[in-house]
Amino acid sequence: MAKATLTISSKNYSSWSLRGWLLAKFAGLDFDEVIVGPDDASARAEILLLSSSILVPCLRHEGATIWDTLAIGEYLNETFPGAGLLPADRIQRAHCRSISGEVHSGFTTLRASLPVNLKGHFPGFKVWTRAQADIDRIWAIWRDCLEKSGGPFLFGARGMADAMYAPVVTRFVTYDVKLEPQLKAYADLIMAMPEMREWIAAAKAEPEEIEELEVEY
Amino acid sequence: MAKATLTISSKNYSSWSLRGWLLAKFAGLDFDEVIVGPDDASARAEILLLSSSILVPCLRHEGATIWDTLAIGEYLNETFPGAGLLPADRIQRAHCRSISGEVHSGFTTLRASLPVNLKGHFPGFKVWTRAQADIDRIWAIWRDCLEKSGGPFLFGARGMADAMYAPVVTRFVTYDVKLEPQLKAYADLIMAMPEMREWIAAAKAEPEEIEELEVEY
Repeated sequence: MAKATLTISSKNYSSWSLRGWLLAKFAGLDFDEVIVGPDDASARAEILLLSSSILVPCLRHEGATIWDTLAIGEYLNETFPGAGLLPADRIQRAHCRSISGEVHSGFTTLRASLPVNLKGHFPGFKVWTRAQADIDRIWAIWRDCLEKSGGPFLFGARGMADAMYAPVVTRFVTYDVKLEPQLKAYADLIMAMPEMREWIAAAKAEPEEIEELEVEY
Repeated sequence: MAKATLTISSKNYSSWSLRGWLLAKFAGLDFDEVIVGPDDASARAEILLLSSSILVPCLRHEGATIWDTLAIGEYLNETFPGAGLLPADRIQRAHCRSISGEVHSGFTTLRASLPVNLKGHFPGFKVWTRAQADIDRIWAIWRDCLEKSGGPFLFGARGMADAMYAPVVTRFVTYDVKLEPQLKAYADLIMAMPEMREWIAAAKAEPEEIEELEVEY
């Protein structure tokens, strides 16, 4: 059987790619990366939130093709049950899936107005009301999880929810969003994970090829 | 243990409520409906796509609270494995989760420009290019599933993917979107399910209370 592959696009801009890649790393999957270049129109449309995400991340593993981050998380959880991607407790698992689903389908204003950009840093960036409402909700989710689990990750041990919220953590760093101490400690923990450091180093080394939007609104 | 409850909002307008309700029905769950009225500001914001969906659908079952449609689907699949919400085959299950995830996070133009409105019928409705791109992708997903499974539902037997795409079927009816014969047969099958007929009858009987948008864009 061929080695697993994970197709991803820009490490600097693609929040979905980061999620899928972290999930595969957390699961302990042995995989090769396949990079879709920024000259690929479909990949560009996905990064610009103009099309649904099917190209990236896309996991191919033992005959299965899975192109959605939550589907990848569930697949890896089934395939590598020992990796603990989802909490063992039924009620915590339901909670984990709820907040993972929420970030999967929601927070559209945050996504559009504070796009993932790991090379960027914008001190004093002004966050407007609707994006702040998304941020307030994320803070409430994190507080609730950390208080229930005791931390240090959202459900105690590192898992799917942390991968799903990792791009949000990078947005807070990029756009200088101030966090209260408990949430700052969580964000720092995510940024300090070896997998995140590896990803961010690769993102910063990425050539800057997506320079303008070739679309009209 | 108290009986399970499913919190939903408008049966006429809420696509998320319909998905959660169908999943619970398909699972064979015995539950009471809790209706969040249209005078509830949070429910209104969800229907208008202005906030992430946490109020509805929300399933409460044996101590677990689950407020996202995919999370509800996974929870019910674990709790009622005999209901067949997800395909038994590993590769088909990965496929089912991928397309369920895609409709969960994507098709935002379709959602905004052809909102679910079961009382409405707009013959000759003009679908613009970006919504048509979403529709083309949905058609490709359905064709692929029906050809691989042989139908009549997306993965042969009725399951999670059908619940996730059911609101899309109603949009095609409401906005007079013409379907090729294979896809028309699938859409007709969904509309003819006893659960859909029950939901639509309730939607049509719902008082019209959401008359205008109280928000500014």
